[in-house]
Amino acid sequence: MRKKKWAEPYIEAHEELVIPDPAEYKGKWRELLGVSELHVEIGMGKGGYLNTMAAMYPDAGWVGIERDRSAAATAARKLIEDSALTGENERMIAGNAEQLMEWFAPGEIDVIHLNFSDPWPKTYTHKRRLSSERFLAMYKVVLGTSGTIRMKTDNTGLFEDSVLYFLQNGFTFTEFSVDYRRTPHPEDAVTEYEQRFMDLGQPIYQLCAKQTENKTE
Amino acid sequence: MRKKKWAEPYIEAHEELVIPDPAEYKGKWRELLGVSELHVEIGMGKGGYLNTMAAMYPDAGWVGIERDRSAAATAARKLIEDSALTGENERMIAGNAEQLMEWFAPGEIDVIHLNFSDPWPKTYTHKRRLSSERFLAMYKVVLGTSGTIRMKTDNTGLFEDSVLYFLQNGFTFTEFSVDYRRTPHPEDAVTEYEQRFMDLGQPIYQLCAKQTENKTE
Repeated sequence: MRKKKWAEPYIEAHEELVIPDPAEYKGKWRELLGVSELHVEIGMGKGGYLNTMAAMYPDAGWVGIERDRSAAATAARKLIEDSALTGENERMIAGNAEQLMEWFAPGEIDVIHLNFSDPWPKTYTHKRRLSSERFLAMYKVVLGTSGTIRMKTDNTGLFEDSVLYFLQNGFTFTEFSVDYRRTPHPEDAVTEYEQRFMDLGQPIYQLCAKQTENKTE
Repeated sequence: MRKKKWAEPYIEAHEELVIPDPAEYKGKWRELLGVSELHVEIGMGKGGYLNTMAAMYPDAGWVGIERDRSAAATAARKLIEDSALTGENERMIAGNAEQLMEWFAPGEIDVIHLNFSDPWPKTYTHKRRLSSERFLAMYKVVLGTSGTIRMKTDNTGLFEDSVLYFLQNGFTFTEFSVDYRRTPHPEDAVTEYEQRFMDLGQPIYQLCAKQTENKTE
C-alpha cells in the first residue's frame, strides 16, 4: 500500500482505537473490551473484515493487527467515519505480529483470524508466512489448548503448504473447504479482496484449526 | 458401466490375471508377484491407471480391485491385448473392497491408491465412500504403520470430507494439493477421467496420507 502522509498523525490522534503500547493490555484485553471472547485478526489490511465482524458479533472483542501503518490508519478511519459502526468492542494495533507474545498473555485469545495473508511465494521467504512454524508456535501460546485459528486464502501454494504446517505442528482441522463460497456462509464476512476472487469464479480455500489432544492425556 | 455379455466368460478364461479366490494369496502377494513392494488400487475402473503404473514401475507389484465386473473384464482385456504391457507384476480382483481383510494380511500392502472414487454425494450414502471411517479402519490393518494411502479426486465435497475423515482417524498428510496438475507429476499416471477434468481446466485434488505416530511411543 502507498504510504499516506496523514496516516501517522491520524494514528496518534486516535490512541483510544489504535493502541500505542499494546503490551499495556497484556492479559487485560477482555476486561478492556468488556467481553468474554477475544478474536484477533492478524493482517487486517484496511479493516473491512474486522469492522464488519465486530459489528456482527458485538458481544465478542475484536483486535486487528496490521504492520502497514497506512493500511492500519485507513482501517481506523473507516471505523470512525462509518456512523453505523460503534467500534466499542474493537481495537487496532499498528505493528508487527512477531511481537504477539508481548501483547497477549498465554491463553488470552479465543480465535485468531488469518485472511488472505501474504503468500510469500519464494521459498527463502516462506518463514515470513503467518501460518509458518514459527508463528504457529506463538499462536499455541496465546490461544491455549482450546483456541482456534480460522484461515481463508485464494492462494493455492500458501494453502497447500499451510495444511502441512498445521498438521506437522500439532494442529488438526475442524472445518475444511477447497471452495468455501460455493455454499452460503452468512456467519462470515466477505473481505474486499475475497469478493474480487468470488466475482472471477475462483475458489476460496478455508480451514479452521485447533490443537490436537495433549500427549499426556 | 453397461453390463458386457463377454465379461464373465472373459474373467473365467483369465484366472491367471483376474484371481478367482484372492484369499488364497493372503500374505503371499509379494511372493506371487516376485516383488518387495505392493501397491493396491481400489476402484481401478477400466484399469488405465493400474496398467500404466505397473508398466512404469515393473519392480513393484500392482493389484487392482474393481467391483463392477464388466469394468474389471475391460481392464483385463486391455492389459492382455496391449502388446507393450507384460502384466507380469500385475493382478486383478473383480470383487468388493469390503472383503479387503480376507484378501490381504496385516501390513501386507505398501500403498493403497484411491483414484476418482465414487463420491456418494448423499449423506446417507457417505458410509460407502472408500475414504470413510469404516474403510480407513481396514486400510490401517492391511497397510500396517508404515504404509500410505494416495488419493486423487475432482470432487470437492468428497475431498473436503475425506480430509476430515483421515485426520479424525489417526492419519496425517505427507503430500497435499488442491491443484495437483498445475505442476508436472510425470511419476504419476493420468487416468482417462482425470484427463477430462484437466482439459476442462478444473483442479485435481490430491493427498498422501500415513498413520500418525503410535500413542504408545
